[in-house]
Amino acid sequence: MQPHDFFLIILIVLFSARLFGEIFRKLSLPPVLGELLAGLILGPSFLGFVELSDVLKLLAEIGIILLLFEVGLETDLKRLMKAGWLSIIVAISGFVLPFIFGTVVSYYFFGFDIVVSMFIGGTITATSIGITVRVLQDLNKRDSLEGEIVVGAAVLDDILGVILLALLYEFSNAGEVSLTNASKVFIFIIGFFLVAPVAAKVIAYLIKKYHDTNKIPGLLPTSVFMLVLFFAWLAHKVGAPEIIGGFAAGLALSRRFFLPFGMALANDVKFSQKLEDEIKPLVYVFTPFFFVAVGLSMNLKEIAWDEPYIWLLFGTIFILAVIGKIIGAMFIPLEIKKRLIVGVSMVPRGEVGLIFAEMGRVTNILDNVTYAALVLVIIATTILPPFVIKYLYKDD
Amino acid sequence: MQPHDFFLIILIVLFSARLFGEIFRKLSLPPVLGELLAGLILGPSFLGFVELSDVLKLLAEIGIILLLFEVGLETDLKRLMKAGWLSIIVAISGFVLPFIFGTVVSYYFFGFDIVVSMFIGGTITATSIGITVRVLQDLNKRDSLEGEIVVGAAVLDDILGVILLALLYEFSNAGEVSLTNASKVFIFIIGFFLVAPVAAKVIAYLIKKYHDTNKIPGLLPTSVFMLVLFFAWLAHKVGAPEIIGGFAAGLALSRRFFLPFGMALANDVKFSQKLEDEIKPLVYVFTPFFFVAVGLSMNLKEIAWDEPYIWLLFGTIFILAVIGKIIGAMFIPLEIKKRLIVGVSMVPRGEVGLIFAEMGRVTNILDNVTYAALVLVIIATTILPPFVIKYLYKDD
Repeated sequence: MQPHDFFLIILIVLFSARLFGEIFRKLSLPPVLGELLAGLILGPSFLGFVELSDVLKLLAEIGIILLLFEVGLETDLKRLMKAGWLSIIVAISGFVLPFIFGTVVSYYFFGFDIVVSMFIGGTITATSIGITVRVLQDLNKRDSLEGEIVVGAAVLDDILGVILLALLYEFSNAGEVSLTNASKVFIFIIGFFLVAPVAAKVIAYLIKKYHDTNKIPGLLPTSVFMLVLFFAWLAHKVGAPEIIGGFAAGLALSRRFFLPFGMALANDVKFSQKLEDEIKPLVYVFTPFFFVAVGLSMNLKEIAWDEPYIWLLFGTIFILAVIGKIIGAMFIPLEIKKRLIVGVSMVPRGEVGLIFAEMGRVTNILDNVTYAALVLVIIATTILPPFVIKYLYKDD
Repeated sequence: MQPHDFFLIILIVLFSARLFGEIFRKLSLPPVLGELLAGLILGPSFLGFVELSDVLKLLAEIGIILLLFEVGLETDLKRLMKAGWLSIIVAISGFVLPFIFGTVVSYYFFGFDIVVSMFIGGTITATSIGITVRVLQDLNKRDSLEGEIVVGAAVLDDILGVILLALLYEFSNAGEVSLTNASKVFIFIIGFFLVAPVAAKVIAYLIKKYHDTNKIPGLLPTSVFMLVLFFAWLAHKVGAPEIIGGFAAGLALSRRFFLPFGMALANDVKFSQKLEDEIKPLVYVFTPFFFVAVGLSMNLKEIAWDEPYIWLLFGTIFILAVIGKIIGAMFIPLEIKKRLIVGVSMVPRGEVGLIFAEMGRVTNILDNVTYAALVLVIIATTILPPFVIKYLYKDD
């Protein structure tokens, strides 16, 4: 495939993402759903016009990593720490409950064997941080306390989800689980999260220092772009989701991040602003690829719509996926509406859920009907919450 | 290949481009040569570490198109028009002379048949506008009269080169040339250049209008990115080089571009500035891929260095390639040093030359030795002029 053929695909993806985003905005709907719809329409579900090629996957992955970098960049670490315990509560209960609900009901009610049941449970554990953040951003609620709690919880969720996936993968292959391996992954991730922000901060300091004396233009955007990709790659290497690397890099470069041991890395507000200004165009250009790619990766045609069993399975898992997250948010000491907002914000399942379902299908653990029902659950959890969140915020 | 594998390649490419660029700058050498060297080192010539994959080709192509967009954006159309006749003289004579010299010497002196001779002549016709512009930019001479002449001439050169390639391709296939086809391509390109800037200006006006009222962030960088890709794709469709599309889009959006018939598209300096600020990070991130890719696409190992014939062929063609361009610049009424600067600036052959040589090799028109000699000519014409230009400017 020649570059100019890709140009047309890139154009179609970006243009339809923008078009549907703007139409949704006009209709007072979340623009991010417009971008997902653009993917559904272009993809195998409807037109079958655009294929989710390696190039699009790469652009999508860069997009979500840059978005998470920006999320990190705009995260107020002090507030995240204040939200810390609340996030941890929401993350753990919102992870454990759907997993247990999903596994138990699949095993006892639907009669799946234990590995299949755990895959179903696993699919509905992890919140799609990308979609959740976009919805909150679209509503200008990213900076609220609820927003901080949700972002923190979604990040933890992703980490827990990936550890679970590693465990299940081993379990389905070897028939047993090595806790050594799982704890190794866990320790790596914790270590990454302790070391990464400090390392990123030091690198950022060097960039800044060199930036002031350097004459070749473009040092700032290229080196920050490199830094983000490097941390994403590093996160993958230690077994964590790549987006976590982007988030950690963003957190370290955020203007409100101070190193605890008070090193002379005083924050330069002007520099931080310049950094944000120069990286944002990249974020804006790459991010739509991710949401369109999520739409492209779903195939609504694969779903046997006339099979009642599929609807029963879908309905049951969907309800478990929703109430698991909402109950999870009920443990935090906020007014009830805020708890509901946090709970509903945690409902969207996206990339990690799709990775679970996809791996289950590829390894023949999930049959086609179960796979379809799970994809349907992911679609429904992704599409409905933005409306509910918007409704819950309507009096603000 | 998974996205995270690409991350590493992207990182290596960007980092080594920057590293060698900075080292060359420190040594008072043109940074762009550092980026080329990074490509040579990473590619099959030395380490064989990075392969010029479809993804890298795409990123490189986007990079050169964005660079040409920026060149267009910074072009002062009034001055380009003033330079116009001079550019046309330099372009035509700098195109015709190397082609005639190369063809005649290959045919009579080296005894190649006529198609091979014309391919050799064709390979040395077109100036690498990308490399030339980067060298002038690095020396802060992009805005000089010489700079304008060279940019205008290089753009025309590329167009002529592509028309010649289309003709030669037909000639080598059919054994005869249809002038109808060639003139069709020519008319398309002229039409594109008349229509494209106006169309781009109107689109830019719509973007600007919508930008002021729109609430979804990122409209400006995404739509300008789309506009540039669209014009590149369109240029390709009418048979012109894609980079010409990027250049036309940039020209239309430049703050000094006024529509001749005085439509109410008054230029908004603040908006132009914002546009430049938001598009530059994209230019900086993508452009290094192009120069590294040029290095990656060359394989110095393919050259049979111990074959005297190759050196004779290389030396002869190289001299013809240099003097053809320099004589071409002697027809313009400037002081002799400026003529020399213009001539030497036109010497670098890059992408179009490589496309000629590559097509000649793939179609078996060029044997391996001739191909190697031509690649060597392209390398030498690319590497030497920056030093000479720098030397010529040393008293300024």
